[in-house]
Amino acid sequence: MITVEQAWHIIQNQTRDYGTEAVAFERSLGRILAEDILADRDMPPFDRVTMDGIAINYTDFAGGNRSFTIAGTQAAGDEPLRGSKPDHCVEIMTGAVLPEGFDTIIRYEDVLITGNHAEVIVENIRRGQNIHNKGKDKQQGDVVAAKGRVISPALISIIASVGKTNVLVKKFPKVVIISSGDELVEVDETPAIYQIRRSNNYTIKAILQQQGLQIDMVHIPDEPNVTRDEISRCLDNYDVILLSGGISMGKFDYIPQALEEVGVTKLFHKVRQRPGKPFWFGANDKGVLVFAFPGNPVATFMCVHRYFLPWLQDTLGLLTQKRYAVLAADFTFEPDLEYFLQVQTTMAPDGRTMATPLAGNGSGDFANLADTDAFLQLPADRTDFEAGEVFELFQFNRN
Amino acid sequence: MITVEQAWHIIQNQTRDYGTEAVAFERSLGRILAEDILADRDMPPFDRVTMDGIAINYTDFAGGNRSFTIAGTQAAGDEPLRGSKPDHCVEIMTGAVLPEGFDTIIRYEDVLITGNHAEVIVENIRRGQNIHNKGKDKQQGDVVAAKGRVISPALISIIASVGKTNVLVKKFPKVVIISSGDELVEVDETPAIYQIRRSNNYTIKAILQQQGLQIDMVHIPDEPNVTRDEISRCLDNYDVILLSGGISMGKFDYIPQALEEVGVTKLFHKVRQRPGKPFWFGANDKGVLVFAFPGNPVATFMCVHRYFLPWLQDTLGLLTQKRYAVLAADFTFEPDLEYFLQVQTTMAPDGRTMATPLAGNGSGDFANLADTDAFLQLPADRTDFEAGEVFELFQFNRN
Repeated sequence: MITVEQAWHIIQNQTRDYGTEAVAFERSLGRILAEDILADRDMPPFDRVTMDGIAINYTDFAGGNRSFTIAGTQAAGDEPLRGSKPDHCVEIMTGAVLPEGFDTIIRYEDVLITGNHAEVIVENIRRGQNIHNKGKDKQQGDVVAAKGRVISPALISIIASVGKTNVLVKKFPKVVIISSGDELVEVDETPAIYQIRRSNNYTIKAILQQQGLQIDMVHIPDEPNVTRDEISRCLDNYDVILLSGGISMGKFDYIPQALEEVGVTKLFHKVRQRPGKPFWFGANDKGVLVFAFPGNPVATFMCVHRYFLPWLQDTLGLLTQKRYAVLAADFTFEPDLEYFLQVQTTMAPDGRTMATPLAGNGSGDFANLADTDAFLQLPADRTDFEAGEVFELFQFNRN
Repeated sequence: MITVEQAWHIIQNQTRDYGTEAVAFERSLGRILAEDILADRDMPPFDRVTMDGIAINYTDFAGGNRSFTIAGTQAAGDEPLRGSKPDHCVEIMTGAVLPEGFDTIIRYEDVLITGNHAEVIVENIRRGQNIHNKGKDKQQGDVVAAKGRVISPALISIIASVGKTNVLVKKFPKVVIISSGDELVEVDETPAIYQIRRSNNYTIKAILQQQGLQIDMVHIPDEPNVTRDEISRCLDNYDVILLSGGISMGKFDYIPQALEEVGVTKLFHKVRQRPGKPFWFGANDKGVLVFAFPGNPVATFMCVHRYFLPWLQDTLGLLTQKRYAVLAADFTFEPDLEYFLQVQTTMAPDGRTMATPLAGNGSGDFANLADTDAFLQLPADRTDFEAGEVFELFQFNRN
C-alpha cells in the first residue's frame, strides 16, 4: 500500500491546464488572475495632495515669508490652477493635483486663514511635504499585479483603478460529484430505519463552492450497468469526477471495475492512512481524472482537503504554503497508518497555532467534524505523539 | 483624540440584532446558524456495519466454531435479515444494518469464502468489532450543531443528514456604500489627468461579499444638498451606511455636517491611528449606523477590517479569537499614533505565524496592499519595534 506522500505525488503529476476565460471584474473575486495587470498610467497619476490645507512654493517660505495671498481654491477633481505668483498660495484639498508653481502642502491645522490671507503658524515645514508624487508607487506599464494570484478585495481595487472592466482568469475544471449507495435517500425524504440521508455530496459541493467552483451532482444506484453507463457519460462531459462510496471490498462496490471497463486507468487504490484508506485514483486517456473516495463522510471530507484541493491549487498555478501547528495534548494512535487527527486550533499569544485533538468516533462521525477546524497529519511510523510537537496542518471550516 | 481601543468599544456598544430568516440549506453556506440543529434520530440511526465482510454471533466463535454457513447477503440500504441460526453468518457490507442475532463483523480480508461457507482465518476477533453502535455519536434530540455557528461544509453535512431542508440563519444588515469625491470616474471611463477611477467602493463590496453580504453602491457628488438628500434616503432604506471620503478638513468635505443635519449623532470623529485618522462614526435615533471612512483606499481598507468586520461578527453573535503574529524584522514608526503595519505572513515550521513588514508608500498606495495579507497593530506609545516581538494580527486576503 502506498503512503500519503506517494499518493500525493501521483496526484500532483496529474495537474492540468484548463485554459483561461475573461470575466467582468466585479465577478472575478476569488478567481486566479491569468494575465499581468499593468498600470495604465503612473500611480499616482499626478503629484497628489495628501492633506487639506494650502499649497505654497517652498522658496517663498525659505525666504522668510509666512503670510500668503490665497489665489484660489482647488478641490479634488478640479483642473489644476495655473499661473502662480510669489507669496501666493492655493487652498487645496486631499486628492487634488498639485498646481503648477507650487511644491509644498501645509495642512489647515498649521495655518490661520483670514479673508484671502493664510498665515503659516508653524516652522517645521519640509519642501515637498504632503504630496504623493506622480509614479511613486508604480510607473505606467509596470506590472501592478502578476498573473497567478488569487483576486482578493485589494486586487479588485487595483483592477478597478487601471480600468480593467474585464479580466482574464484561470478556468476552473468542470467537476461532477457522483454519490452511490442504495442506503441513501434525499434530504427531504424520511429514511427507513436501514437508510440514511445523502450528505457527502452536499458537503463536497460546499467545499468546492468556497473555492468558487459550481459543480454538478449525480446519484447512482448500486447496479453495475447503470454505474458503468453513468460514469461513461460523466467522462464525456466533465474534467474531474469525484466519487463517494462504492470502492471498498463489498460485493456491491462496482465502481473500481466499472471505472476500468470504461477506460479509466487505476493510478492507485488504497493509501496507508486513516481515515480514507480505500481511496482510488485514476485517469482516462483524455485526461479526465477520477478521485474515488470512500463513502464514509469523514474519510471523504479529509481526502478532499488532503488531495483534491491541493491538486486544484496546483492546477490553477497557486503558490501555497505548508502550515504547521503545535499538538496541544498527548495523543496515541496505534495502527501502522498515517492518521488525520481532527483538531480545534487556537492561536497562542506567542503567535503559535495550537491544535487540540478531538478525535471523534471514527470515520462515520461527522458530528465531531463540525466541532473541529483542521486536521494534523501524524506520521505512520509512531504510536505516541506528545504535546508540544509540531505537525503539518490542513485547515478547513475557516471563516 | 480617542484611541483605537476606545473607538472599538464605542462601535462594539452599537451591535444590533437584525433577526433571523429561513433559507434553503443548500444556500446556507457561510451564514450564521440561528437555531439549534437537533438529531432527528440517533447517530448512527442503527448499529451500523463499518467493514465489508461477514456478520457472526460472537458466542459461536467463542465456542470454537470457525466455519459458518452463509445464510444470506445484506447490502447497505437493505432491510435487515431476520431469523439467525447457530453457526450461521451473513455476508454484509459497509453501511448496512447489523442483522438481528449477530453482534460481530469480520472483514473479508480475514475470511475464506467457498460456496456458501465462510471460514474465519484469524484468531484475534473481538465481540462487537467493526460496528458503529446506534446513538454512539449523538442521541435523538441531542443538539448536533448549536446556534451561533458559521455554517461550514461540515455543518452542511449535519444539516443534510437530519433532513433540515430549510434552516434558520441570522439576517445580515442591509448595507449601502456611498462613495464621494468629484475626482472619481467610473471604471469603464478614461479619467482626465486630475481624475482617478472609483475603486474603494468595489473593494469594500468585495470584502463584504466574502462574508456573504450583498450590498448596494451609491456615488454622490461633492455638493452639500445632494449629499444631505442622498444620505437621508439611505438612512430610510438601510441598516448601515459605509461612506468613503469627504470627512477630512477640506472645504468640500460636506459629510460630517450633512450627517448631523439629517439626524445622525456623531459618536466619534478621528482616531489616534494611521492610516484612517479622520474616521467618523455615528448613529441616528432609529439605530442606523454610519461608518464614514477616509477616502484613501488603504485607510478605508484597514478601517473595514479593524472596525466594521469585527462589528459585523459581534452583531451576528460570532465568537472570534484574537490572532497574533511575530514581527519578522525591526520596524520604526515615529508619530504618536497606533500604526496598522502591512505585513506578509508566513508560517514557521515551529507553528508560529511570522509577519514581514511591507510598509508601502502610505495610505494612497493600494498596489502595496495587494502584496500583503494582514496588518499588525503596533501601539502608539513606542517608536521602535523589534523582530521577534508579538503583536495583534488582522488578516485579510486569505484564501
